[in-house]
Amino acid sequence: MSTAGVPAKYQTDVLDYRVCYADTDCMGRVYYANYFVMFERGRVSLLRAAGFPYGLIEGDGYLLPVRRCEARYRGFAVFDDELEIVTWITKLRHATITFASGIRRSEEGEFLVTGAVELACVGRDGRPKAMPEKISVTLLPYLEAE
Amino acid sequence: MSTAGVPAKYQTDVLDYRVCYADTDCMGRVYYANYFVMFERGRVSLLRAAGFPYGLIEGDGYLLPVRRCEARYRGFAVFDDELEIVTWITKLRHATITFASGIRRSEEGEFLVTGAVELACVGRDGRPKAMPEKISVTLLPYLEAE
Amino acid sequence: MSTAGVPAKYQTDVLDYRVCYADTDCMGRVYYANYFVMFERGRVSLLRAAGFPYGLIEGDGYLLPVRRCEARYRGFAVFDDELEIVTWITKLRHATITFASGIRRSEEGEFLVTGAVELACVGRDGRPKAMPEKISVTLLPYLEAE
Amino acid sequence: MSTAGVPAKYQTDVLDYRVCYADTDCMGRVYYANYFVMFERGRVSLLRAAGFPYGLIEGDGYLLPVRRCEARYRGFAVFDDELEIVTWITKLRHATITFASGIRRSEEGEFLVTGAVELACVGRDGRPKAMPEKISVTLLPYLEAE
Repeated sequence: MSTAGVPAKYQTDVLDYRVCYADTDCMGRVYYANYFVMFERGRVSLLRAAGFPYGLIEGDGYLLPVRRCEARYRGFAVFDDELEIVTWITKLRHATITFASGIRRSEEGEFLVTGAVELACVGRDGRPKAMPEKISVTLLPYLEAE
Repeated sequence: MSTAGVPAKYQTDVLDYRVCYADTDCMGRVYYANYFVMFERGRVSLLRAAGFPYGLIEGDGYLLPVRRCEARYRGFAVFDDELEIVTWITKLRHATITFASGIRRSEEGEFLVTGAVELACVGRDGRPKAMPEKISVTLLPYLEAE
Repeated sequence: MSTAGVPAKYQTDVLDYRVCYADTDCMGRVYYANYFVMFERGRVSLLRAAGFPYGLIEGDGYLLPVRRCEARYRGFAVFDDELEIVTWITKLRHATITFASGIRRSEEGEFLVTGAVELACVGRDGRPKAMPEKISVTLLPYLEAE
Repeated sequence: MSTAGVPAKYQTDVLDYRVCYADTDCMGRVYYANYFVMFERGRVSLLRAAGFPYGLIEGDGYLLPVRRCEARYRGFAVFDDELEIVTWITKLRHATITFASGIRRSEEGEFLVTGAVELACVGRDGRPKAMPEKISVTLLPYLEAE
């Protein structure tokens, strides 16, 4: 895996993904909203790699709803492209995590699309709930140095 | 609304739908699986028109999971098409309903795509549960005469 | 239609939308990426209302790819909600348009989700191409006063 | 890979797939139409394994639009399930291919969902066009003995 475009001092999760017809639209490219599904695949993959699969987090009485998100499109992917979904963390607060994502063709350095998704950490009642320290500590290696 | 292609002796539900980019794929047409989303919109619309919105059915302790479905593609819709989703019922049993659907361009008689979706009527424990008579009776006018 | 939350000095496009099962996810809400599909429905609707359906724009040799987008989630919609997709324009440049969107339950004033999508105006070769004046002029009434 | 449920005398393509939030709906399961996206992933994977990626087929002037499809649901998958998409061929005619698919949890024998998708082989003008012999011959090992 090429690391161009991703600073090396913190860990990133890299997930392979193959573009299917369902991802594309009649402009011949991946539909803009579908990159957010890739971002989701990436952050679930990072959490699993860190030892905290969503199922475990939810079992502990936490939910992680999305509070804001954004994407920037410099290029685009097409049907059958082999992509890498690169994910890391840019902010880790009491009851908030921000994941950053970059989508690139395998073996290429440049990201076609980048994005960020901020999740709130809430209890089953929907109120903010501080993330357990065991989770924050495990996620630290993925945190981009500020 | 033109009625060509739909026998007139029973009632049908007709829902307007405008094709968006997200519905299409890079072959320039609506992606084949997305017609099943239209079928869903149609059957929810029929149930609401009949006086039984899904919310009410679920509140009564019933779920309606899909058991089988099929579609046949004679033509295709493209971005920005104004479609009519026509829905009726072809089978109404103890704990099973089969909805039939036809998708056509507004003002045109021929269906581009037709389909059928069989739903089971189950309780919260997942076991078959006879549909309440008040529902079956209300759905009868939509039943295609056999 | 309530106008709370939308300044009244410029025009907005309002499109009704009914949430279907396909829009939701297992957290019981509309999946975060699916609001971007609603944003798309809204901007296509605004362009049509302004007299410039996408088909016409593309016929003129223009494409409008997305360059950046963002969304902010204050609440959430659930299955069967009747929503209003409110769309207006926040930036209108030589070869760039930014659409703003707000999603709310019908008859309610507060937006559950808001977003912005910046489109580039490019020719068939993918290069920036100034938007024809006839289009910009028609879109002016939808432009939020700065 | 367990082979229960799939006769062993012909070859099958097996593709791993992880269920994401976007695949599910508010009934807590994978939305019924989304299995057809898995079926698509499976048949593209089979064609690639056989040496005929879609890109190559399209480059030769062929398109493979869907003519009919069906699915049968015996169980269901949920968020984060690791699935196997098993694909083989049940009919191989002049200008028609039918793919069969089975979706199961990894390491389990029983299919949760099975389906069939019939593709037409057409030229760029949309008319039936016999599949080149080099393709049919390569696909023969995947054909279920009748």
